[in-house]
Amino acid sequence: MIQPLCWEDGSGLTYIDQTRLPTTLQWLHPCSAADVVEDIRALRVRGAPLIGIAAAYGVALAARSAPRGAELASVEQAARALVAARPTAVNLRWAVERVRERARAALAAGEPMGDATVREARSIQAEDEAMCRAIGRHGAQLLAPVRAVLTHCNAGALATAAYGTALAPIYTLLEAGKRIEVYADETRPLLQGARLTAWELTQAGLAVTVITDSSAGAVMQRGLVQAAIVGADRIATNGDFANKIGTYAVAVLARANAIPLYVAAPSSTIDQGLHDGGAIPIEERSPEEVLTHGGRRMAPSGVRALNFAFDVTPAEYVTAFITELGVHRPPFTTSLPHAYGGAGLVPTLPA
Amino acid sequence: MIQPLCWEDGSGLTYIDQTRLPTTLQWLHPCSAADVVEDIRALRVRGAPLIGIAAAYGVALAARSAPRGAELASVEQAARALVAARPTAVNLRWAVERVRERARAALAAGEPMGDATVREARSIQAEDEAMCRAIGRHGAQLLAPVRAVLTHCNAGALATAAYGTALAPIYTLLEAGKRIEVYADETRPLLQGARLTAWELTQAGLAVTVITDSSAGAVMQRGLVQAAIVGADRIATNGDFANKIGTYAVAVLARANAIPLYVAAPSSTIDQGLHDGGAIPIEERSPEEVLTHGGRRMAPSGVRALNFAFDVTPAEYVTAFITELGVHRPPFTTSLPHAYGGAGLVPTLPA
Repeated sequence: MIQPLCWEDGSGLTYIDQTRLPTTLQWLHPCSAADVVEDIRALRVRGAPLIGIAAAYGVALAARSAPRGAELASVEQAARALVAARPTAVNLRWAVERVRERARAALAAGEPMGDATVREARSIQAEDEAMCRAIGRHGAQLLAPVRAVLTHCNAGALATAAYGTALAPIYTLLEAGKRIEVYADETRPLLQGARLTAWELTQAGLAVTVITDSSAGAVMQRGLVQAAIVGADRIATNGDFANKIGTYAVAVLARANAIPLYVAAPSSTIDQGLHDGGAIPIEERSPEEVLTHGGRRMAPSGVRALNFAFDVTPAEYVTAFITELGVHRPPFTTSLPHAYGGAGLVPTLPA
Repeated sequence: MIQPLCWEDGSGLTYIDQTRLPTTLQWLHPCSAADVVEDIRALRVRGAPLIGIAAAYGVALAARSAPRGAELASVEQAARALVAARPTAVNLRWAVERVRERARAALAAGEPMGDATVREARSIQAEDEAMCRAIGRHGAQLLAPVRAVLTHCNAGALATAAYGTALAPIYTLLEAGKRIEVYADETRPLLQGARLTAWELTQAGLAVTVITDSSAGAVMQRGLVQAAIVGADRIATNGDFANKIGTYAVAVLARANAIPLYVAAPSSTIDQGLHDGGAIPIEERSPEEVLTHGGRRMAPSGVRALNFAFDVTPAEYVTAFITELGVHRPPFTTSLPHAYGGAGLVPTLPA
């Protein structure tokens, strides 16, 4: 299984340029926080957890190269630029804050700030991997009886330190010797399914079949998949959840075909301030993403397009949520973990 | 409203090259049956009713230019080539047979074969337009209270002599001064919605919004449409029907959002030999259509794709069928018209 980001004490930070996948596997070597900012902004690094990890190392890069006497100012400046790279990403802000705090504490204690911040970023990365592995273990119980599963978008290793969220149970079962076949919705308009999910599963030696998003129903009708599993960007306490546009259709079709829908995400995705999905703000992106295909405009000029980045799936369609803490079944108002405040508070993991 | 095919006695046959839409509006002027065969094969002319009409004129072109003494042989040869252009298209075979019969009868009666066959092709064209207009009249009653409607693929004027099937009620209401807004699913993989539906509605001055297929659910959830209307390729006597892949998802999402689903098609689409949708053979097309976008391959090499051209929607999701004979509501086993044998038997229309 691919790990999209590495830190080596000798060579520093490196990560995959995800905009060049699947045709080219290119590793980038950012030398400064500014490089990391640019890569996050250009979507070369994407996936909320992975953005947080990359930004954490970005702060460490600034801390290591800070000129004597201006240590804190350098770190603060880098932190601000990193947080601004994608202002709506919750993990990004949380991870940057955490490493910045560590830099301040190190400076106050007279410790080497560079080493301390690298260790903090390493912790964030390790915790994310551990969280994904725990999601994988819990989800593997649910997917064990399944021959083939349908997924939407990319909630895989490429979006995290390793393993992913929705794909973690599939990797966990692979390590245990069980190969699950995956049907990947291509996920228009940006094709994260066809480009990223298909690529990382192929790299892991798993069989993937790409389908157009509108084929998911036919695939379920024919009994080609026995479960659907997706990630989540935000979960309300009643179990409504927001995820990539098209997730709602997968959910409704799964219900119509008596196929379980599993939603895998860290417990920090549960927004304790949100009772239901009605209040989740939905990002609307450029119409050009819809009107163009492979860089070519396909619709007539003057025509409008509507491009919601996410949709909200009502809780009634969810068979179970899978977090690092376990499997949570309805009623979600009582079963979903609520020990952790808002987004970004990563819990200590069970061993 | 656009009419995609014309016959003028002076200049002969002309039709739009639909492969060049929406960027270029190019009219083709086929000079022979062989030209028509080539255009049908290359999908420059598409849509089952329109293919039938074009092929009918193709036989007439052969009849007009047949060398003295070899009239029948020329017509027979052209007819065989036209039918073979798309072997599964039922309308094509039916229309070609009808004009060929007329040619034989004319020859036997000593009438000019060219004139007789052109008249027969004109009749087929006029009957198709009348049928679409009747569908439009019946469907207009259903859509009159609607502000905006969602459609999938292209069952519009471009697929018929004029008006289309699913889009006919929208054009009928436009003629009566009522403008319905249309949300057009882009319809991956071949984008008939983004390319053709958006183009012809824009030409008619109607407001169209293109969405990715996976946005249909979000559009319904938000109350942006009050009905969905689609065409059909084949309807079983119990009301199950086959249509472009993704229609099933539209149907299930419409039901989940308490939005009516209307299916518009000529009564000849009802297959009296088919009790339910289970036996409808589903064409599987090249994986390359899924793996490429705007001519660029977007998925990793070695990955598989599954590309069903159609799916089957169970009758339970259909609010009403609209044919040229009227509006047919459940139970369809008793309400669907059954006076006409199989596909291709075009009924005489009510005035």
